[in-house]
Amino acid sequence: MSSIDFATLARRDADDPLAAKRSLFKIPADTVYLDGNSLGLLTHQTAQRVQEVVQAQWGDDAIKSWNLHDWVDLPLSVGNKIAPLIGAEPGQVICCDSISVNLFKALSAALRLQDGRNTVISTADNFPTDLYMVQGLSELLGEQRCQLQLVDEADLLADPQRVIDETTAVVLLTEVNFRTGRRLPMQQLIAQAHAVGALVIVDLAHSAGAMPVALDAWRADFAVGCTYKYLNGGPGAPAFIYVAERHLTQLQQPIAGWFGHAQPFAFDPIYQPSPTVKQMLSGTPSVLAMSAVDAALDAFVDVDLQELRNKSLALSELFLELLEANGLAGSFTCISPSTTAERGSQLSFAHPEAYAICQALIDAKVIADFRAPNYLRVGFTPLYTSYTDIGTAVARLSTIMQQESYRAPRFQQRHAVT
Amino acid sequence: MSSIDFATLARRDADDPLAAKRSLFKIPADTVYLDGNSLGLLTHQTAQRVQEVVQAQWGDDAIKSWNLHDWVDLPLSVGNKIAPLIGAEPGQVICCDSISVNLFKALSAALRLQDGRNTVISTADNFPTDLYMVQGLSELLGEQRCQLQLVDEADLLADPQRVIDETTAVVLLTEVNFRTGRRLPMQQLIAQAHAVGALVIVDLAHSAGAMPVALDAWRADFAVGCTYKYLNGGPGAPAFIYVAERHLTQLQQPIAGWFGHAQPFAFDPIYQPSPTVKQMLSGTPSVLAMSAVDAALDAFVDVDLQELRNKSLALSELFLELLEANGLAGSFTCISPSTTAERGSQLSFAHPEAYAICQALIDAKVIADFRAPNYLRVGFTPLYTSYTDIGTAVARLSTIMQQESYRAPRFQQRHAVT
Repeated sequence: MSSIDFATLARRDADDPLAAKRSLFKIPADTVYLDGNSLGLLTHQTAQRVQEVVQAQWGDDAIKSWNLHDWVDLPLSVGNKIAPLIGAEPGQVICCDSISVNLFKALSAALRLQDGRNTVISTADNFPTDLYMVQGLSELLGEQRCQLQLVDEADLLADPQRVIDETTAVVLLTEVNFRTGRRLPMQQLIAQAHAVGALVIVDLAHSAGAMPVALDAWRADFAVGCTYKYLNGGPGAPAFIYVAERHLTQLQQPIAGWFGHAQPFAFDPIYQPSPTVKQMLSGTPSVLAMSAVDAALDAFVDVDLQELRNKSLALSELFLELLEANGLAGSFTCISPSTTAERGSQLSFAHPEAYAICQALIDAKVIADFRAPNYLRVGFTPLYTSYTDIGTAVARLSTIMQQESYRAPRFQQRHAVT
Repeated sequence: MSSIDFATLARRDADDPLAAKRSLFKIPADTVYLDGNSLGLLTHQTAQRVQEVVQAQWGDDAIKSWNLHDWVDLPLSVGNKIAPLIGAEPGQVICCDSISVNLFKALSAALRLQDGRNTVISTADNFPTDLYMVQGLSELLGEQRCQLQLVDEADLLADPQRVIDETTAVVLLTEVNFRTGRRLPMQQLIAQAHAVGALVIVDLAHSAGAMPVALDAWRADFAVGCTYKYLNGGPGAPAFIYVAERHLTQLQQPIAGWFGHAQPFAFDPIYQPSPTVKQMLSGTPSVLAMSAVDAALDAFVDVDLQELRNKSLALSELFLELLEANGLAGSFTCISPSTTAERGSQLSFAHPEAYAICQALIDAKVIADFRAPNYLRVGFTPLYTSYTDIGTAVARLSTIMQQESYRAPRFQQRHAVT
């Protein structure tokens, strides 16, 4: 039997100032969902909004909806809704495209500001698409204009001044590592970059909606982020991009689509960029997808981000304690930092059978995920993850490990998981 | 009174082999919708599918849906569904991003195949975002690698051999002009381009779903297109991109996101492009938006594209006849070609009061649109536009013109329309 005191967990849930938020979400039946760091859950309001946009807006008002229902303003209005969650004053954030496409824009724009420097520094374990974007731009421009230099995260943290120097054009960092959950000290790294004249692009994929972010205070230059993880915008939902106001006047990005034009509906054959963050728009944005993001963000109304962070860390600490109390801490090697300040909102554990265990957990309705080569990843989403959830998850994991049910043949086959 | 024989129109509708398709769509009440060339209407099946994806897939199965509901295959499966509508064998079309972003990829890839040539030819009246993409890439790469040369459509048609020559790298043409509805002789223009070693990118925004397109037969090199017009995929729905199979082996495009990697879920730090058309993918695609496109395409099952084209032209000829019969042909100058083979699926009319007349029409539930400087544009979507619709539209227009109701102050104010 697992040693979990569910009565105590129920009391913690009762005392949780964010507890009421859980009812906004559709929680899959009997399920502990620890994968909000991959795909956040649906809110009831989002479902209703999508239905309304499809039937009443597109269905009834069709083309008139662009003005009648303010479709045309969605990218900026959603951006302005994201802004306070990432510590940005309004007018610097816009919702559009994917992180990949937005990184291409940000990196091109940043390099253009850094005439004479070509080195883009990133960590070898950054999320691959971030690195691919540098490689794609480097292939297009040539290494004399864009050269990727990969560094070990540990080296960067040990001695940022050795890694980021006067030859660095751009530093591209993801605040929270997707594999290990390690959180980088962005403010310090940005200060170091600026001290030597480098610009910084921050990827907030695993930060936005999970903890306070302070882009303006950090003096970040550009940032990108994801709305389908902690912001619950829906599968493949449009991303966002932040451009610090001080860069807007000299901004130029190459994927210069008509929505980024100063006057899109003038149908001018010559591109004149919008003087605002709208320049970051390219083609016509998906209204269905962006409306879902817009509705999902309402779950953050009145949320104190420090409170959110406190709960995130409390959930992860509880997970670690219960692993220990159930004799599981020995077999699952936590590869996430032990210091809470150095962590995002997830924990990752190395285990030789991580893939099979993850499958067995999913079968037992504990949705975690697997990341190569052998990591079990559990994410904590304070708006809907309860303390009881953590107890249930560890209890089910404990049963799986005791019964060795993950050794069943159906869990052993290895295939791609997203 | 207008002279319109509605009994005859009803008989034409009864005899229309495509008439049954109309019931698949949600037609706004009492409305004649002549703007499917801007935003196609919703099908009932699309509404149902979006609901299912939101509630049963995202809502209940959450992250598991990527495999369980084949979300991960959507871009290619939707591409393969579009392929027969544009004359392409499977494996050459993929659904993703916007036309703008896809043009950036196609143009970068095409220029890379054309080492030593830098001239990109397009028409001055091409849809602006197409031209902006060339300008954005030119700004990024420098004119020695990418230089836009704008030509008059009339000059191109009069003497393609003079316009497209041995210095031409890429010819970027939209088959049907968004403003005038003129349809270019793509097969002939592609043959001329190939004769001098140029590559061709075709924009099918106003073609796909409106008429037969024969990309493979034409030997087009690249194509892009829109799914939210005649394909009814929803506002801002993801676009598509076609790459001729012969180019796939040497393909390289710079917006090299993780979904375009040969093994996206290996999380390899080095980009290795997929050897298939999947290389054209960048970031995570919007599942809601793409599912809507997927469902909408089912309206084309069993549709004979030549029959579709015949009806499209019959509708436009009827519109012209009824204008004439109602004494309106003199005041509306048709700027679309008089020869049906040279037209797309729309008609455009110059009128000094086009903006106000368009507003009055919309007020009378005839949804047309306005394009600068003074054009009234009416689009025909054979799957849901009926012959009776055309009669109703002209009757309402006739009343507006007789009563001069478009002179009402509420129709006079000019603002952006999409």
